[in-house]
Amino acid sequence: MTAEKTLGEREIIQLLLEKFQPSPMPIPSGDDVSAVDLGGGRLAVLKVDMLVGKTDMPPGMTAYQAARKAVVMAVSDFAAKGVRPRAALVGLGLPRYGSRKVKSLAEGLRDAARQYGLSLIGGDTNEAGDLVITVAALGFCGKGRLLLRGGAKPGDLLAVTGPFGRTAAGLKILLENLKAPGNLREKLLRPVFTPEARLQVGLRLRRLGATAAIDSSDGLAWSLRELAVASGVGFSVHRLPLAPEAKAFADLHRLDPFDLTFYGGEEYELVVTLDPRRFRRGWEKRWGLQVIGRAVEQGGLVFEEKDVRRTIQPRGWEHFKARRRGRKLA
Amino acid sequence: MTAEKTLGEREIIQLLLEKFQPSPMPIPSGDDVSAVDLGGGRLAVLKVDMLVGKTDMPPGMTAYQAARKAVVMAVSDFAAKGVRPRAALVGLGLPRYGSRKVKSLAEGLRDAARQYGLSLIGGDTNEAGDLVITVAALGFCGKGRLLLRGGAKPGDLLAVTGPFGRTAAGLKILLENLKAPGNLREKLLRPVFTPEARLQVGLRLRRLGATAAIDSSDGLAWSLRELAVASGVGFSVHRLPLAPEAKAFADLHRLDPFDLTFYGGEEYELVVTLDPRRFRRGWEKRWGLQVIGRAVEQGGLVFEEKDVRRTIQPRGWEHFKARRRGRKLA
Repeated sequence: MTAEKTLGEREIIQLLLEKFQPSPMPIPSGDDVSAVDLGGGRLAVLKVDMLVGKTDMPPGMTAYQAARKAVVMAVSDFAAKGVRPRAALVGLGLPRYGSRKVKSLAEGLRDAARQYGLSLIGGDTNEAGDLVITVAALGFCGKGRLLLRGGAKPGDLLAVTGPFGRTAAGLKILLENLKAPGNLREKLLRPVFTPEARLQVGLRLRRLGATAAIDSSDGLAWSLRELAVASGVGFSVHRLPLAPEAKAFADLHRLDPFDLTFYGGEEYELVVTLDPRRFRRGWEKRWGLQVIGRAVEQGGLVFEEKDVRRTIQPRGWEHFKARRRGRKLA
Repeated sequence: MTAEKTLGEREIIQLLLEKFQPSPMPIPSGDDVSAVDLGGGRLAVLKVDMLVGKTDMPPGMTAYQAARKAVVMAVSDFAAKGVRPRAALVGLGLPRYGSRKVKSLAEGLRDAARQYGLSLIGGDTNEAGDLVITVAALGFCGKGRLLLRGGAKPGDLLAVTGPFGRTAAGLKILLENLKAPGNLREKLLRPVFTPEARLQVGLRLRRLGATAAIDSSDGLAWSLRELAVASGVGFSVHRLPLAPEAKAFADLHRLDPFDLTFYGGEEYELVVTLDPRRFRRGWEKRWGLQVIGRAVEQGGLVFEEKDVRRTIQPRGWEHFKARRRGRKLA
């Protein structure tokens, strides 16, 4: 073990994939969810998401919020694929908690399950040194009805389901102790502690002419990178989808709004490409969709607004280096 | 948090179940697996099992063995229900491992998946302080084709798929430093480090006339207790299914063979009740089934052999008190 270096997360995933040599699957390995062919034109769609206290609970997050977030993480992946999650099982690793904390945790799971309409049908509890909540969610859809990462075509509109930057700002408040006035602080912390999965718009995506989608939990830049690689396109972004509260925070601390927008994470907006012939302007307001750019022929991620032109770095949460949420295995 | 007591595992599960108020499910809450109705007379069967380094890896267990065991734990629950697991997702919480250890872990997952014929179709990796491996397994079966805990009837034969006590002895070697000659030591440690799920016989159980089944990972006594409660019967055991190696170890250390047999755990034999009218003697040899007693009208678990009569205590792994594997949530 002496001189052997610690692996980064992508290296780990690479190693795992080499060993697994996954058999042919109904959807490509590496997308947000996995699937099993049920026959009769149907798929069972599955996702496992693990929340670990040390890396996924910012300071001040309660057991209730952590439990809720664990469910949101899994639901968000279903939302990005346009599939309704039906049921979930929960694997719990618990430190020595008293009954109040266990109750809060159970309520967090229950409330999130109710909010997104899924049944908690089972699980497993274990003693652990740190809180670990694994949510395994299951849904069903028709074959070919699943929205994948790889369907974007040059010319497609690029849209997001909400603004970015609040979570990045909120994490700066919590982790780097940056200040913000009470009202602003609250607005920036809310999505950190109480994230929302975009399930309703996600379930609509196909009818809205979506061609590809991903959730943005690994940051907007990385989500664009993943869509670009899977679809073989580039993206030209012409509008910064920065939340007004994040803009105010950036002004206050002289932060680059560009960085707050693209290199945050722990955000659960969907990043979608849409067929421009089917897109209707009213949808922006109705579905909270914001068109921010276009898929282009040539590779690369570029931000172009008036006379500003900046490269969007394909940076994400490198989980074993930054203290962030993980990425998918396969 | 001051004077609040730490909860035992069953209390935790009780609290969780009160909050969840699970909706009507195709199989009773608390059985080895959960299920979702697929329509058309079919069920999707699911199980989540979490292995935590601190509580599930005895001293000396390698990453390879832990990964393999995590799969075995889930497969064993499917075996007890007579359902073939088709696919699994793996949630990994990893300490800062080098590539050798990550490779071993991947090989452990892969080898167990191959051995039991399931596909690893996805997962999630995270940094964690301790190794955590959550396996979420999925299978399918016809409605009513699932073997439950609650089907035993008075007069049914009680059988196990293999002998007990080796793991309990092996854990005494590892945790309490008891000695054993090299050859014996090896035989007692093998099932601790390389447990096997009884999938082949499990898939046969219905055809063998099984009426109820459970896996024995929480100990033989507790498994009998669970079958008894779910079925509303008692059990009279007339033969001690003690492995010869465990018997030798008991003789060596003046341990009670009864305790080694009933109060061990981490064993993955199946405990089954069988319709006596369908049972054929040849099956004992052919399927490694050993008839050890009968289901009886009145409650309670009793061991009766010649002139010995002892009560089997409904003791299991109380996980937050003993350092043992958890029990099912729902």
